[in-house]
Amino acid sequence: MLASNDDEIQLKMKKHNFSAGPCILPQEVFQKASESVKDLDGIGLSILEISHRSKEFINIMESAKSLALEQLGLDNSYEALFLQGGASLQFLMVAYNLLERKAGYLDTGTWSSKAIKEAKLFGEVEVLASSKEANYNYIPKNVAIPSGLDYLHITTNNTIFGTQFKDFPTSDASLVADMSSDIFSRKIDFSKFSLIYAGAKKNLGPAGATLVVVKKDILGKVSRQIPSMLDYKVHAGKESMFNTPPVFSVYVSLLNLQWLAKNGGVAAIEQKNQAKADLIYGEVDRNPLFKGFAAVEDRSMMNATFNLMDEQYKDKFNELLKEAGVNGLNGHRSVGGFRASMYNALPKESVQVVVDVMKHIEKTA
Amino acid sequence: MLASNDDEIQLKMKKHNFSAGPCILPQEVFQKASESVKDLDGIGLSILEISHRSKEFINIMESAKSLALEQLGLDNSYEALFLQGGASLQFLMVAYNLLERKAGYLDTGTWSSKAIKEAKLFGEVEVLASSKEANYNYIPKNVAIPSGLDYLHITTNNTIFGTQFKDFPTSDASLVADMSSDIFSRKIDFSKFSLIYAGAKKNLGPAGATLVVVKKDILGKVSRQIPSMLDYKVHAGKESMFNTPPVFSVYVSLLNLQWLAKNGGVAAIEQKNQAKADLIYGEVDRNPLFKGFAAVEDRSMMNATFNLMDEQYKDKFNELLKEAGVNGLNGHRSVGGFRASMYNALPKESVQVVVDVMKHIEKTA
Repeated sequence: MLASNDDEIQLKMKKHNFSAGPCILPQEVFQKASESVKDLDGIGLSILEISHRSKEFINIMESAKSLALEQLGLDNSYEALFLQGGASLQFLMVAYNLLERKAGYLDTGTWSSKAIKEAKLFGEVEVLASSKEANYNYIPKNVAIPSGLDYLHITTNNTIFGTQFKDFPTSDASLVADMSSDIFSRKIDFSKFSLIYAGAKKNLGPAGATLVVVKKDILGKVSRQIPSMLDYKVHAGKESMFNTPPVFSVYVSLLNLQWLAKNGGVAAIEQKNQAKADLIYGEVDRNPLFKGFAAVEDRSMMNATFNLMDEQYKDKFNELLKEAGVNGLNGHRSVGGFRASMYNALPKESVQVVVDVMKHIEKTA
Repeated sequence: MLASNDDEIQLKMKKHNFSAGPCILPQEVFQKASESVKDLDGIGLSILEISHRSKEFINIMESAKSLALEQLGLDNSYEALFLQGGASLQFLMVAYNLLERKAGYLDTGTWSSKAIKEAKLFGEVEVLASSKEANYNYIPKNVAIPSGLDYLHITTNNTIFGTQFKDFPTSDASLVADMSSDIFSRKIDFSKFSLIYAGAKKNLGPAGATLVVVKKDILGKVSRQIPSMLDYKVHAGKESMFNTPPVFSVYVSLLNLQWLAKNGGVAAIEQKNQAKADLIYGEVDRNPLFKGFAAVEDRSMMNATFNLMDEQYKDKFNELLKEAGVNGLNGHRSVGGFRASMYNALPKESVQVVVDVMKHIEKTA
């Protein structure tokens, strides 16, 4: 047990959830979602048993789509779609719908390289830059982008390695981005992108829904026949209701977007996320027992990756984290060490708990 | 307002949910799911925020898969997969994975014809029989099945038209079935099938998960390259965890399967479903104001379709249904009239309420 001095760790029963995804969502979202599983807004039916053609759900879907576009600052030249299958299905849908001749990809981690693998089934794929040789601990910069690409694909935040694009490549190609792990977390000029996709389960909502935001005028240009379920135009033409959508995941995503809007939107949440990131990286850099994994200028605001300088403290550190109620801080096997995933709903207080544990182990080392 | 005589309708605040899908699930499943959205089994975290790699969710997934196979009476020559995208994604996945030369399809309704449309992108598709000329009001029988097909595809229950296969075609081809709307509702020799798929949202669970049960030895035989997310072998090799599964939908499916098992499994539920079907069809046949839509021998136990003999009673009937708390009895636009979807969790009492309304309108007509 830890002592309870002021500068030591306050033990709490509360869990501090640093899970990399599925991840923490706001407590008020859990409360409202829980009520709606019993009775949706007093209609006498569960959110789990209403028809997706009911006026209640049509309203949920329309609200979720329009609020998503609003929070991204995008106009109606874009279509927002709530689909299924996560980013993994988008890896092939992007290529199915957009790859005619040649696409460019930046390889910044595990998810980028999976996207590249799937796209290769549909056409020529040029990997324009990769940080694989350094175990993806940085974002390649000043990459020469050839002209005439069907599209250029990037992964804006690399969950496993803890890197994040701060500036985005410019070229004459449509910019396509996997933003699964940092959408709605910071202010970006989203109109630079022609297609953005994001598996829910981080800042959007629970697992099971996938948001695709696509500029309408880039669709319908490939010559291949596309199966209906993989065709963005089919989904856009049916308002994301071509088939039964993942009703509950869309509903909880709407609750989460409403929470975001009520709390000042992406501009306000970015400030909070920056403060959390500053707190943890400050301690990683200060504390002689730890070192950061990612290049300093490319550090992710969402996922802070760091390792112990000396593995002998590993068990003790893990034990202290557990006692403090910290969940999900273990690093991915590709990097080892620790990963603090600090999505929108994670309170700064939880980051402070980890920092306190880091300080504590330094003192007692 | 209706009178409250014994043989008249008892008004209740309770809703009687006949929605065709997403549909009613057991009340105890809603209760437990609601609790778990706040706190899963006392671990201090919501089911919506735990990692899919956590021991809690791995246990949920394994239990759901094994209980699904157990309830179907299938051994480990089959693999159970929980995927996403509903039956609509299976329409193309089946063909992607199994169609090399030629497949046979029986066209028994809207969903069959959609399956046929998607399969045609991948190879030759022979429609061996169709009841389209009769607005799909019957199941074609004694269909000659040519030998040498890659597979034969049927839709066991046709939600929109209210027809259901009672016997299954036999041939040398692998039998593939869309059982979205009648899986787990009746005792069948499921081992006659090489691949069964079912979007959840009826008898399996809420929208967002898709069950695929596949005989392992039929996979890996086509020559085309299959994108990872569309490849059954990839999902089977990763225990349905190739990518993040729809955590909550899988969890609620498990709760629902546990409810089914506790209540005697498919054999016991079939008796209850038969009693509900007998009750409604008995009244449809007896009551001179109504007529059934589907051929009597092909009537579905899940979805009873019927029309008014005289449309002048439509508004009155709808009004009485609404007063009685009946939800979702409107027929699909392809058939008109009414459709009573009586999935596993619908109590016989709810069917009795509809029958009482039918009797009432006859008396007052």
